[in-house]
Amino acid sequence: MQGLLPVNARTAYPHFQSITTRWKDNDVYGHVNNVEYYSYFDTVINSYLIRDGGLDIHAGPAMGLCVESHCRFDGPLAFPDSVDAGLRVTQIGRSSVRYEIGLFPAGVDMPAAEGWFVHVFVGRGDRRPQAIPNKIRQALERLLVEKKETLP
Amino acid sequence: MQGLLPVNARTAYPHFQSITTRWKDNDVYGHVNNVEYYSYFDTVINSYLIRDGGLDIHAGPAMGLCVESHCRFDGPLAFPDSVDAGLRVTQIGRSSVRYEIGLFPAGVDMPAAEGWFVHVFVGRGDRRPQAIPNKIRQALERLLVEKKETLP
Amino acid sequence: MQGLLPVNARTAYPHFQSITTRWKDNDVYGHVNNVEYYSYFDTVINSYLIRDGGLDIHAGPAMGLCVESHCRFDGPLAFPDSVDAGLRVTQIGRSSVRYEIGLFPAGVDMPAAEGWFVHVFVGRGDRRPQAIPNKIRQALERLLVEKKETLP
Amino acid sequence: MQGLLPVNARTAYPHFQSITTRWKDNDVYGHVNNVEYYSYFDTVINSYLIRDGGLDIHAGPAMGLCVESHCRFDGPLAFPDSVDAGLRVTQIGRSSVRYEIGLFPAGVDMPAAEGWFVHVFVGRGDRRPQAIPNKIRQALERLLVEKKETLP
Repeated sequence: MQGLLPVNARTAYPHFQSITTRWKDNDVYGHVNNVEYYSYFDTVINSYLIRDGGLDIHAGPAMGLCVESHCRFDGPLAFPDSVDAGLRVTQIGRSSVRYEIGLFPAGVDMPAAEGWFVHVFVGRGDRRPQAIPNKIRQALERLLVEKKETLP
Repeated sequence: MQGLLPVNARTAYPHFQSITTRWKDNDVYGHVNNVEYYSYFDTVINSYLIRDGGLDIHAGPAMGLCVESHCRFDGPLAFPDSVDAGLRVTQIGRSSVRYEIGLFPAGVDMPAAEGWFVHVFVGRGDRRPQAIPNKIRQALERLLVEKKETLP
Repeated sequence: MQGLLPVNARTAYPHFQSITTRWKDNDVYGHVNNVEYYSYFDTVINSYLIRDGGLDIHAGPAMGLCVESHCRFDGPLAFPDSVDAGLRVTQIGRSSVRYEIGLFPAGVDMPAAEGWFVHVFVGRGDRRPQAIPNKIRQALERLLVEKKETLP
Repeated sequence: MQGLLPVNARTAYPHFQSITTRWKDNDVYGHVNNVEYYSYFDTVINSYLIRDGGLDIHAGPAMGLCVESHCRFDGPLAFPDSVDAGLRVTQIGRSSVRYEIGLFPAGVDMPAAEGWFVHVFVGRGDRRPQAIPNKIRQALERLLVEKKETLP
C-alpha cells in the first residue's frame, strides 16, 4: 500500500541516473565533499531536461536558472562507488519548477542525502522569467508526485 | 540605528574572506555555477575554523561534518571577479553550529546569494557527535549575532 | 596484425571505465573544461588501483602521488554524454609507474584526448618513495603494453 | 646577472595572480589534488587575457582553446593557504600561444609546481584557428621571455 511507503525510499522517485564518483570528490575527511552532492543534483536534473525535455543548453531560447537549493546529509558517499540519483517533481508553476532529489549508494534502499532544487526558466537574451517550454513541461509532469509524497 | 539595517547587508556579517573565482566556475550560461557557491561557503567557514579556531584538519580529534545546507540565489557572480564571503554564526549547541553566509560581488553592498550551513562536530575515530572543542567554540562565539539579525 | 593498429584506438587500451559527465564540467565555451580531463585520468587510475590492486586510500601504508601529467586535446567532450576512459601502463619502476589514458566519446573509436600520468608510491607516514606494493604491482603488470604501442 | 637566475624562481615570471585555495581542493591525502593545479593555470591565464588583453569570453569573436597542457609536481600546496600563480609566455605564433606557469606557496621563492599550456585561438562560430586578436597579442608580448629562460 503506497501510503505506508517512506517518502524517501527508492520507490518514491520515478526517475534515476547512475553517476560515477571521481577521485577528487572525496575530501580530507575521506568521503564525498558536501559541495559535490549539489553537482549530482544539477547533473540528474539537466540530463533529464536535455534527454527527455529537449532542452538545448547551447542555443535554446529558454534556460533553467537555480534560484534556491537545499540538502540534508544523512550518511556518507565515497569514491570509487557510484551514486544513484533519484529525481521527482513536486511543483510546477508558469515559469518555475521544484525538484526533489535522493542520492542512494548503489544497492541501498534509503538515501544518503535528500534535497530540493528550484529552477526558474528565463529567456536566453533578456534573462527574464518566461513560461516553461511545452516539451519540457510535459517531461516534468511525468515526474510529478502527489503532495503527501514530498519532503516536509 | 541597527534595527533598520537589512539582515543581509555587508554590515550584518562580522567576518569576511575574499575568494578568487576560477575560469571553470563559470558554466555554460556564463556565470558561476550554483554548485560553486557552496564551495565558497565551505571555504570561508573552514578557513575561519583553522585560522581562528585552531582546527587541525589533518590530525585533530574533532571534525566538522556538514549535515544540512541551503542557498538562495539572488543575482549572478562571474569569473574573473572575486567574491567577498561574509560569515556569521546564528546558533551554537553542544556539538553543532549554524552559520549564515552572504556572498557579495566586490564593491557591492547587497549579496548575490545567501545561505546557511550546519556543522556537527564528531570524533575523528568514531565519527560520533562530541562537544565542540573550546578554542573553536570561542572563535564561533565571536561571530554570534542576535536572532533578529538572522535569515528568516 | 597488431603492428598496423594506431596506438590510440580503443583496442590499444586493455582497461576501460565509463565516467558520467556533470553539468558543471562544461565551461563557458560549451564543452568539458580542459581541467576536468585530468579528473577523468585520476578517476580511472585510482578506481583500478582500489578495485584491482587492493589500494586502501584511507589507511593503507602506501599512497600514489602524481609527480607529472600531460594531456593533448584533439576534440571536444560534452555533458551530458558519458566518457569512456581507457587505461594502459607503459613503464613500471621500483616505486613509480607511468600510465597512458585515452578519453573516448561513447561509440567513437578514436580518442578526444590522450595523456599520461606518473605516480610515485610513498609511505603514508614519511611520504618518501617506497616499493610498489605487490598486489598493486601485479595489477599494473596486467595493463602493461609494449613500447611500440605507446605515445611518442 | 640574469643568466645565473634559475628559470623557475619568482623573478622568472613577469606576471602574478594570487589565488585562494578552497576546502575541497584538498583530497584524501591532505593536499591540493593534482587536477586543481590545472585550474590555477586556467585561472591566471584567462584572468590576464580578460583584464589585460580585452578578451570577451561571452560574446567576443575569438576564443582560446587549450590543445595541450603539462605539469610537473615538486611539492605540496594545501588549503587554506593561497597560491601565487606566476605567468610568462614563451612562444607566440599566428593563432597559438605557449604559456609557462609556476605555482608558488605564499612567501616561498621556488615553485611547488611548474607547467605549460598551449592555447589556439579559434572563431566563436566556426571554431577554426584564426589570428590572435591584436590587443591580446600585445598583452601576450608583454609577458614574452627569452628562450634560455624557459622550461626544458
